[in-house]
Amino acid sequence: MTDIKKYLTEKKAVIDNALKAYLPQPEGPTADMVKAMTYSLFAGGKRLRPILCMAGAEAVGGDGIKVLPVACGLEMIHTYSLIHDDLPAMDDDQLRRGKPTSHIVFGEAMAILAGDGLLTEAFHLMTRPDVIEAFDPENLLQVIHLIAEAAGYQGMVGGQAMDIQTQGREIDPSLVEFTHAHKTGALIAAAVTSGAILSNGTEDQIKAIQTYGARIGLAFQISDDILDIEGDVINTGKGIGGDVKKGKNTYPSVFGLDNAKNVLKKTVEKALAGMEPFDQKADPLKMIATYIMKRRK
Amino acid sequence: MTDIKKYLTEKKAVIDNALKAYLPQPEGPTADMVKAMTYSLFAGGKRLRPILCMAGAEAVGGDGIKVLPVACGLEMIHTYSLIHDDLPAMDDDQLRRGKPTSHIVFGEAMAILAGDGLLTEAFHLMTRPDVIEAFDPENLLQVIHLIAEAAGYQGMVGGQAMDIQTQGREIDPSLVEFTHAHKTGALIAAAVTSGAILSNGTEDQIKAIQTYGARIGLAFQISDDILDIEGDVINTGKGIGGDVKKGKNTYPSVFGLDNAKNVLKKTVEKALAGMEPFDQKADPLKMIATYIMKRRK
Repeated sequence: MTDIKKYLTEKKAVIDNALKAYLPQPEGPTADMVKAMTYSLFAGGKRLRPILCMAGAEAVGGDGIKVLPVACGLEMIHTYSLIHDDLPAMDDDQLRRGKPTSHIVFGEAMAILAGDGLLTEAFHLMTRPDVIEAFDPENLLQVIHLIAEAAGYQGMVGGQAMDIQTQGREIDPSLVEFTHAHKTGALIAAAVTSGAILSNGTEDQIKAIQTYGARIGLAFQISDDILDIEGDVINTGKGIGGDVKKGKNTYPSVFGLDNAKNVLKKTVEKALAGMEPFDQKADPLKMIATYIMKRRK
Repeated sequence: MTDIKKYLTEKKAVIDNALKAYLPQPEGPTADMVKAMTYSLFAGGKRLRPILCMAGAEAVGGDGIKVLPVACGLEMIHTYSLIHDDLPAMDDDQLRRGKPTSHIVFGEAMAILAGDGLLTEAFHLMTRPDVIEAFDPENLLQVIHLIAEAAGYQGMVGGQAMDIQTQGREIDPSLVEFTHAHKTGALIAAAVTSGAILSNGTEDQIKAIQTYGARIGLAFQISDDILDIEGDVINTGKGIGGDVKKGKNTYPSVFGLDNAKNVLKKTVEKALAGMEPFDQKADPLKMIATYIMKRRK
């Protein structure tokens, strides 16, 4: 049985090194642009999405290292979404993981552009000549399609729009799950599924991993919302109760804290049950699901 | 000899119809999101980039209609860049092509997200299963790489960052060309080159078309800056002298109006000279170069 903390730490180090290698040195006329992109990319992310991509590859017998360019592209997309979410016109957050947000450091214009740059660079990285060489090109195209769908108006961006639009007003409880599934769940599901597709998983494996991904994606957002209420600033690196102050519709705010914890537990159990057909190569995925339920930051 | 106005009008109609078909109806929880994306996409663009993509395909004996998904993806990327450029933190423009800009109509948060949604949807569209089916998958991946590079920090976004950073201060004249080439030239060059790659142009043809693209991209931006000084609001749909008021470093503002016109003429002449080896299938590309020099809007 893998030690999950060790697994996450080791994978994070590999991903951090890869991200460093993929980004250029800040020099020439675009130096400030690259600095802003790099700043947010190395502002202390847990690298959950790239880890899931690698673990998804391993679960079907693939090589986690081989899928690093796609894994890192996913982290770029996640990071861009945080930069834009933090903007004054959006959540207006000045701290993220204990550090000043991009627009505080680089100004609003540069923060918008750094986000745009990271989103675009993700697709640039995933289609580098050496990456095209490494995979079945049709698989790679399918993965790009999946990731773009999960990141776009049918996924993350759509969920963020819902989140912004429904702040401060009561909404149909069904829309809470919609918002969560789109805002966070979609990209997490795409991450783990991408790893499995690129590693030539069978149709059944890919389907099971996609379902697992949707479930832990939802679980992750619920646990995030619970931490917003119960976490402490030292562990989470951000102010507590921010969602409540903004009138956000979260699982705990709409269904109550106990119900939210219950849904979280049941969602993780379902994710684990769906992974039963897999052998020990899928242990990391199983343990990540449990980790999401128990995390304190 | 093709009638260029007729050619542009016919192509624009085909592209408008394709864009309409590619975007969903605004319904359900993401209806506002889709409305905002659609609003800017149909706010009166000339469709220069998709037309160039189709003309690039035709120039090497390919089918313009076949490359429509990529052509329309390019228009989505161009449109997203306009939405973000117009934001209060950027150029703070309230009118674009005579219509209120996205943040005026939908608010700043939704404008940011609509831009993000269009950029992401471009990559989603270009990797649809039917699009993967239609092309050599390695060619398609190469085209996505080229477009992402042209749109990202090494291209359009980098140029926009330079543009914002150098407003109101004197810069090295060489940086004017850098900014222009990146902000506008890169995506225009990628557009015409994509069409040629997807249509299996020879290496020499692709190289020649890429050079043509870089030249007319530069020419287009210079002519835009000249129109900002000499155009009238009825033809251009935007206030005149906006660049001057903002202290932008443009070709006319740095080198003078006469010099700018001279560079424009020479750049178009070079673009035309580079297309000499092509047969009459490249006539539209040749005429587009001349059109850029003479355009009044």
